[in-house]
Amino acid sequence: MSNSQTILKPYVIGLDLGGTNSVFGIVDSRGDIKATTAIKTQGFEHVEDYVAASVEALQIIIDQVGGIEKIKAMGIGAPNANYYSGTIEQATNIVWGKGIVPLADMFSKALGIPVAITNDANAAAIGEMTYGVARGMKNFIMITLGTGVGSGVVVNGQLVYGCDGFAGELGHVTMVRENGRSCGCGRTGCLEAYCSATGVARTAREMLANSEKPSLLRDLDPEAITSLEVSIAAGKGDELANEIFRFTGKMLGEACADFATFCSPEAFVFFGGLTKAGDLIMNPIREAYDAHVLNIFKGKAQFLTSSLDGASAAVLGASALGWDLR
Amino acid sequence: MSNSQTILKPYVIGLDLGGTNSVFGIVDSRGDIKATTAIKTQGFEHVEDYVAASVEALQIIIDQVGGIEKIKAMGIGAPNANYYSGTIEQATNIVWGKGIVPLADMFSKALGIPVAITNDANAAAIGEMTYGVARGMKNFIMITLGTGVGSGVVVNGQLVYGCDGFAGELGHVTMVRENGRSCGCGRTGCLEAYCSATGVARTAREMLANSEKPSLLRDLDPEAITSLEVSIAAGKGDELANEIFRFTGKMLGEACADFATFCSPEAFVFFGGLTKAGDLIMNPIREAYDAHVLNIFKGKAQFLTSSLDGASAAVLGASALGWDLR
Repeated sequence: MSNSQTILKPYVIGLDLGGTNSVFGIVDSRGDIKATTAIKTQGFEHVEDYVAASVEALQIIIDQVGGIEKIKAMGIGAPNANYYSGTIEQATNIVWGKGIVPLADMFSKALGIPVAITNDANAAAIGEMTYGVARGMKNFIMITLGTGVGSGVVVNGQLVYGCDGFAGELGHVTMVRENGRSCGCGRTGCLEAYCSATGVARTAREMLANSEKPSLLRDLDPEAITSLEVSIAAGKGDELANEIFRFTGKMLGEACADFATFCSPEAFVFFGGLTKAGDLIMNPIREAYDAHVLNIFKGKAQFLTSSLDGASAAVLGASALGWDLR
Repeated sequence: MSNSQTILKPYVIGLDLGGTNSVFGIVDSRGDIKATTAIKTQGFEHVEDYVAASVEALQIIIDQVGGIEKIKAMGIGAPNANYYSGTIEQATNIVWGKGIVPLADMFSKALGIPVAITNDANAAAIGEMTYGVARGMKNFIMITLGTGVGSGVVVNGQLVYGCDGFAGELGHVTMVRENGRSCGCGRTGCLEAYCSATGVARTAREMLANSEKPSLLRDLDPEAITSLEVSIAAGKGDELANEIFRFTGKMLGEACADFATFCSPEAFVFFGGLTKAGDLIMNPIREAYDAHVLNIFKGKAQFLTSSLDGASAAVLGASALGWDLR
């Protein structure tokens, strides 16, 4: 972002397009959110109506910051988003998302500013690089631990989009090649099947069933256990809950050791609910990484957690896409 | 490489610095080797003497092409090479290679031209991008199948060096997490332990010992079997030899499926002795890839073998480093 441009057009718009809500924010170059609004994502049969409703909601906050001429660009973080084509592709869990939807182009025409789109984890990586703990870093890997395991890879200061715009799906490297857990992607043994929120809950159910060890988690309905409850129990010193975290952290650390062979990052940045457990999860990750990483990479990567406020991180990440647009 | 510069300085020097021989070539922008020379790598106690002998040998072929003013730069492919610092680090199998040796700087001062250095597999990737099957590609992965398994990763048209200059060690992703074969790196279960030339020979010994199947390979001393002999037997239709290739190819294909999640490459380019077996090894790689790759990446990557002449590929790869220097 050049300084003169930042003065003339000091803001970007970020859209965190989720399965339920679409949250908009107007953000300055320091990552301060100046105004925010939201609409329901699913309330529209056609994408044209979704964009029209978005622009109507946006217009109010755009006026609050001095009008569209104060805004440089817009970035969107969305599922199944293709950065190169500016489209959402086969987002079957969104009513208006079937087929190939040219969302960036539609917003760009409606608002008269450049618009870019990418998936949530890639947006998170750009957000950390622009406003967060990865400021100034040229080589790092963002790992988002949520319902799924997402990732954004930054090499030479650029996000890795690959030949098709979809690169950075590290949640789907195969960690268990024989009898691995089934994954939402239709394959088995993926990192995501073990280290996502649902993966951690499944680990909890398996460990509860396969051991006699007393645990606070035994007071809960096993089918309804969440990773948050595992985290709370672990924080209270519950041994079984900590074993669940050690198992999860070990797999993440071993995966990161493989990732290092690719791009020798200066940091792994973690984001998501699981990271709230702090050292209870981060220490097992670090230990497994140190035990497994190739000698030449030992001690070179930091293990960090996002410094962005969880509630607004997705909007910030999306908005950060906008600074590089012209 | 800009055209005007190429006309004034039409050549680059490539040095393939191996454990036994150091081979030099003077190369034009089309990848034609105009002159070549070589010295023994190990014949010198001090790096100063190695560089002096290199320059003496080089001077003859430099004069042949019209003098040093015709030469733009020099590239070196060497073990343990760090692109960022221009050094060879702890190359303990080279007499003069202990500690940190500033080889790029030494050649640059001796010749008066810019010099860059990287490891052989990275040089091979740049060679394919400059003169070979990856011309025009912005995202691909080079995999060299030799004594070890090396790799060079190209993202957005740039080689991935990582935070330290050593990125691209895909031979050391862990493919077998329990009871994996020991690897030269001191760890276990690495791709290299299975798919290098020595890995293939080990697979041959294991399969011969664990089956009663008749095979041409049974006529050989098991301890001395080479991957070349497996290749020859497979080419003659030997069933056990083909089983060895299917095992090797399956592991490479599954590894490539993981690699795709990183950078969604438009191609995997293979180089090395094993690739001479052609479809006998490439088909199992492709089949395992198709069976294991994430749906979104299916059918997007080509599987290619190097188009560069094996004997001169390393010199060409090293030389290609020179074109981007100034």
